[in-house]
Amino acid sequence: MKPGRLIGLSLGPGDPGLITRKAWEALRGNALWCYPIRKRGAESFALSIVKRAGLTVPKEAKALIFPMTSERGKLNQAWAVAAKELFEVLSSGRDALFLVEGDASTYSTFAHLARSLKALEPRVEIEVLPGVTSFHAAAAHLQEPLALEGDTFAVIPAGYGVEVIRRLLPEFDCLVLLKVKPLLDELIQLIEEEGLSAEARFIEKVGTPEERIETEIKKLRGEKVNYLSLLILRHPQRQRGALIQGCKKKTPEQTKL
Amino acid sequence: MKPGRLIGLSLGPGDPGLITRKAWEALRGNALWCYPIRKRGAESFALSIVKRAGLTVPKEAKALIFPMTSERGKLNQAWAVAAKELFEVLSSGRDALFLVEGDASTYSTFAHLARSLKALEPRVEIEVLPGVTSFHAAAAHLQEPLALEGDTFAVIPAGYGVEVIRRLLPEFDCLVLLKVKPLLDELIQLIEEEGLSAEARFIEKVGTPEERIETEIKKLRGEKVNYLSLLILRHPQRQRGALIQGCKKKTPEQTKL
Repeated sequence: MKPGRLIGLSLGPGDPGLITRKAWEALRGNALWCYPIRKRGAESFALSIVKRAGLTVPKEAKALIFPMTSERGKLNQAWAVAAKELFEVLSSGRDALFLVEGDASTYSTFAHLARSLKALEPRVEIEVLPGVTSFHAAAAHLQEPLALEGDTFAVIPAGYGVEVIRRLLPEFDCLVLLKVKPLLDELIQLIEEEGLSAEARFIEKVGTPEERIETEIKKLRGEKVNYLSLLILRHPQRQRGALIQGCKKKTPEQTKL
Repeated sequence: MKPGRLIGLSLGPGDPGLITRKAWEALRGNALWCYPIRKRGAESFALSIVKRAGLTVPKEAKALIFPMTSERGKLNQAWAVAAKELFEVLSSGRDALFLVEGDASTYSTFAHLARSLKALEPRVEIEVLPGVTSFHAAAAHLQEPLALEGDTFAVIPAGYGVEVIRRLLPEFDCLVLLKVKPLLDELIQLIEEEGLSAEARFIEKVGTPEERIETEIKKLRGEKVNYLSLLILRHPQRQRGALIQGCKKKTPEQTKL
């Protein structure tokens, strides 16, 4: 029998209204729902989004465990176990949805699951439904663009540290810093040293009922923030080079907005 | 009378299935549709997405002109004219949707329209509905993640030229290059020189019926490609620094996936 398909289903960052029409249709179909949890009995953030969308979680929906660790051996083992459990479902010919918050191609466990499944059975068909990311939702809520034409932007796990971020600042009109929790005080200091306080924005749990936006960054000093937090640093005074458009070289003045 | 609201409505990159539920609901409401065109009589890509979604474009839907120029004076004037036309609608108390392809915060004319409108009448309420970007849809179609945990990625208009891109390569696990058309041959040469051909992907008009994916970059040498084209360069051999997670310093070995 032909195995079922695995569908990586992006749910967007938290607001059920940001689920795409395609993902919504898939959720209302016959595929088995699978979703990631950190350990047995833990809550699933992805599942909380579909619950808030008003959908009833099917009793048969399957939790797959993705432990919070950076030990490669443990991770490989967990991905292999999850892929094996998933393949048992697909072997019956039934499709499975793997529910992920945000976008399935952007910092998601989905990529590991899909790779492990392909290693187990290369013939399995996979489809990925893209979604809205947390930083795009954050920019929308702030009503401040991530990028205007000619802008550069980068997404960086803050854990690389302030020196990496400082080094990249001259190249980017906007930096999105993820997982800022353990470095928040250092980042606030960097932002102040670089004169970017007026343009810096902090967003926690975007699109959820607990969403918090802070535009006065210094207020966060010493605070414990949620794991799902990010900083958006705009850099409007950046000196940028000329931009080639349609083979015609423009001066920086012409390209600056 | 209280003026109507302006809603920046992101439609995603082209596939009508990637319109969010919230945007879909707004499209089926009573707000006036507005959409950008380059010049009088030109086609609107945004409008083509809603047409393919099966919606009928209301007769009263309003085209706003955003010329293709980098001359700041002409642009400012065009944005002011569009804002004035839009404000006439809003003054009647009716809401207006501004339809944009991709995401309204990411390289969209919406930011200029919103700013010009606020300059005209600061009391106008604005809402932005985020959407799926072309590069997130491209990653989904390729079934290759833009970023795994700990990865850095950047989005760069290719017009900055190959030397800027070469300089940024050591810092990024993934570079998304936009508007590659005028520099495609130079970019192919750069990709080959840097030994990244096997990981480079070209995507044209993602999510539309004309979508084209090319994984053998060298095949594109000398070709004329569409304006809506991008390159995704993954950089799996990058030497990266240690990552601080939860205040604990990891070795590069531990953080590399």
